[in-house]
Amino acid sequence: MNDQEMMNKIIDKQNISPAVIRRLPRYYRYLCELIARGQTRISSSELAKMMRVTASQIRQDLNCFGGFGQQGYGYNVNYLFAKISEILGVSAGFKAIIIGAGDLGRALVHLSMFEKRGVDIVALFDTDGEAEGKDCAGVPVYPIDQLESFCEENQVDIGVLECEKKYVKSIAQRCVDLGLKGLWNYMGVELPYSDDEIIVENIHLGDSLMILNCRVCRNDSSDKDEDTCDENQ
Amino acid sequence: MNDQEMMNKIIDKQNISPAVIRRLPRYYRYLCELIARGQTRISSSELAKMMRVTASQIRQDLNCFGGFGQQGYGYNVNYLFAKISEILGVSAGFKAIIIGAGDLGRALVHLSMFEKRGVDIVALFDTDGEAEGKDCAGVPVYPIDQLESFCEENQVDIGVLECEKKYVKSIAQRCVDLGLKGLWNYMGVELPYSDDEIIVENIHLGDSLMILNCRVCRNDSSDKDEDTCDENQ
Repeated sequence: MNDQEMMNKIIDKQNISPAVIRRLPRYYRYLCELIARGQTRISSSELAKMMRVTASQIRQDLNCFGGFGQQGYGYNVNYLFAKISEILGVSAGFKAIIIGAGDLGRALVHLSMFEKRGVDIVALFDTDGEAEGKDCAGVPVYPIDQLESFCEENQVDIGVLECEKKYVKSIAQRCVDLGLKGLWNYMGVELPYSDDEIIVENIHLGDSLMILNCRVCRNDSSDKDEDTCDENQ
Repeated sequence: MNDQEMMNKIIDKQNISPAVIRRLPRYYRYLCELIARGQTRISSSELAKMMRVTASQIRQDLNCFGGFGQQGYGYNVNYLFAKISEILGVSAGFKAIIIGAGDLGRALVHLSMFEKRGVDIVALFDTDGEAEGKDCAGVPVYPIDQLESFCEENQVDIGVLECEKKYVKSIAQRCVDLGLKGLWNYMGVELPYSDDEIIVENIHLGDSLMILNCRVCRNDSSDKDEDTCDENQ
């Protein structure tokens, strides 16, 4: 085991809390921005100001995985970015398939998001027989009944679920049976797996839209209350 | 003010915490499922089991906005669903525009998500001049320089930001200046507005993908640790 592997092992074994993991992508984005600006070091208080959190939050979060900051120097931006990228699995070389070749599935293929995060989309699977044999931005589209044979012949780590709601549960189970490591679920259907079976990460677009609606409504009504008060003055 | 308006006023004025608001869409989804099954009432403990939370969490959350449950009867599913829909602004009749007529923007127009949540997409705006004059599933596409005239002539409450990253901040500011009430931001660019200026709700697709990667990596390495232990036994 070389030094790098030893370091990774230490980071892997450290108990980074799920809450910190959920905050790391935000650090990743801000560090990207600093690198783009050519800034090579940053203090916890500067980073805190930029990210609108407290400096103590920053120190606590970054200390979780070994504390890359030095008193009076701050954080080395490139080093911190490399370490966070590593923890976030950007260099893990995961291969993903998108299941569901509808508008959203096909739109995802065109986004640079996967490539930027080190994930390679190797195939789309079509659940309604319409897109069979076509390709999408160079990614081949297969009928869903070839899911098993494809996954047995190729490295596939992650399944992105974009198929119709009625298929989600059965297709998720096929992914579990095939030994996939993760599911990225866009369909708002809750999947009952423990992390031992498969890691499930959900994107609830509809929930987010409703939260926006709700916050707008409440903001509106508090404005109205203020107006009423003004009239009474 | 009739009874319904009075009730709305009471709900509006009650201090529902942001944490509860973020949980309400999940209740909404489960209640939809119960209605589809024809179930008309449910106890807090049944709902808790289904949603894999504690019954006391359910009671606390639902008591926040008036406590619709009755001892020994449970919750009236249809009534609870109607109230939660109302709090979530499903009946608010918001009009939205999608800014950015690329693959993702156009894919969103085709999703039933907006309609189901009571949001009407009234236009797409194209930032790169390619989709000008075309329409997308019956929704007209305008060039971005018509944003101001369109919003002045039509009711627009929500802007969905799907345009290129470089345009996000300036377009968000134009939406604020136009008096839009909410921004649904897909672009991973942080917007610095307070709720007084505009409500911003972010969808960080890239962050979610990285969290999935990270959780898969950590799951992988903990499996490997277990294997190592087994070999040593």
